[in-house]
Amino acid sequence: MFSMDQKWLEEQKEQISLALAQQGIRLVVPVSGASRMGGAAGKEQTLASFIDHTLLKPTASKAQIEQLCQEARQYQFASVCVNPVHVEAAARLLQGSDVKVCTVIGFPLGANSTLAKVLEARDAAAAGADELDMVLNIGSLLEGDYAKVYSDIKAVRDAVPGRVLKVILETGYLSKEQIVKGCILTKMAGADFVKTSTGFGPGGATVEDIKLMRTVVGEDFGVKASGGVRDYTTAAAMIEAGANRIGASAGIAIVEGLRGETTN
Amino acid sequence: MFSMDQKWLEEQKEQISLALAQQGIRLVVPVSGASRMGGAAGKEQTLASFIDHTLLKPTASKAQIEQLCQEARQYQFASVCVNPVHVEAAARLLQGSDVKVCTVIGFPLGANSTLAKVLEARDAAAAGADELDMVLNIGSLLEGDYAKVYSDIKAVRDAVPGRVLKVILETGYLSKEQIVKGCILTKMAGADFVKTSTGFGPGGATVEDIKLMRTVVGEDFGVKASGGVRDYTTAAAMIEAGANRIGASAGIAIVEGLRGETTN
Repeated sequence: MFSMDQKWLEEQKEQISLALAQQGIRLVVPVSGASRMGGAAGKEQTLASFIDHTLLKPTASKAQIEQLCQEARQYQFASVCVNPVHVEAAARLLQGSDVKVCTVIGFPLGANSTLAKVLEARDAAAAGADELDMVLNIGSLLEGDYAKVYSDIKAVRDAVPGRVLKVILETGYLSKEQIVKGCILTKMAGADFVKTSTGFGPGGATVEDIKLMRTVVGEDFGVKASGGVRDYTTAAAMIEAGANRIGASAGIAIVEGLRGETTN
Repeated sequence: MFSMDQKWLEEQKEQISLALAQQGIRLVVPVSGASRMGGAAGKEQTLASFIDHTLLKPTASKAQIEQLCQEARQYQFASVCVNPVHVEAAARLLQGSDVKVCTVIGFPLGANSTLAKVLEARDAAAAGADELDMVLNIGSLLEGDYAKVYSDIKAVRDAVPGRVLKVILETGYLSKEQIVKGCILTKMAGADFVKTSTGFGPGGATVEDIKLMRTVVGEDFGVKASGGVRDYTTAAAMIEAGANRIGASAGIAIVEGLRGETTN
């Protein structure tokens, strides 16, 4: 079983800093993402405000996007998470509400060129996306090319200043050590959240991975659990483990599940 | 069962032309893609020359891409088909050979903005891609927004003149009528090939769909069968049905299967 102490974690950070320095990458201390995380510090959060109400099926129709946005307004979810092609419509439909528009970049494989991710992110921001969930370069993380993983995230970060940037690790492909490294790189590159899964790859969020990710990034950072979170019990377990955002297409079932728990 | 006569097919074309005209789209007769299809007219083709030797897993390593390219040289496949992040390496590795570099655009969901697809296509072409397999806007095809489907393909077509453009319909989501419409739109927009599947969605190439696609696009156009083509028998059936390109990660098994057939 994988276990981690603070000393080992610091060594990992050292190791990655060194690897980046050897590639000529000079780290700047990123602005804390906390102010952009949307979590209301000091104020009690509703369960709904943890949820990115998600519809990423390539078959989604305009009518389904309309319904998603209407539900998000009604339940006051944190955001709707839609494919880039629907960002403009979602932004229009959510005007005047507190619900954010979230979209995905380099999704779901992450194997696009960095330039393509940058341009897609800029286009999505221009179309009205407040939050962008990008997939990191999975192949490069697996082979330990940390400079490439870092530069890819950093380029997107710099392309959309002021927007919430979440980095999807696709944990189902990763060892625990690789998850740790993905978290360190995400934080170093100045993103705002680490996120577990696309929902299109193997596996999804687990309590164990969320705990690990929270430990690595610390308190002042976002952790989004996604992939397979379909009911209140699972969502509550993820939040208990350290997630402060939940990506789910079953947002309504999750919130209604809470009501069931409360009234029963 | 779905059946199609020439009159019905002409009506479909009329209907789509009308729908596009109503959106202010004026069709220009596209340059025939035949010259770019890579099939050597009048010269007997080897089975290997039908095959796009494919590795699109997001976990692919540099070493695996090197091996793919080395195999493609050895077996003289039509191309290697890799994710955009590997195009530059593949182009370098295949220099001096006849093997083309194929990549994927808006892959595998097709739900990216048209601008993002255009920019990704340009970037891939600049990095050395000879052939681009784009996923069309599936949601728009399903809801009958033909102008949007057409404009999306046409914009990518215009962005990479002279490159082979294949349009992935993701047939597993489509009715037979929708496959017909996807083929008509692909040809109208001046692409070079229709292609069945991403390999990441539901289903894959079927003999029935390939026959249908070949009938709709006519002889002078490309039809690529992809998704689930893993052995010689299936590949031969696809070619028999009208495919002139096969997308497969099992290219070697397919070609070795032919040898087995020939020597047995």
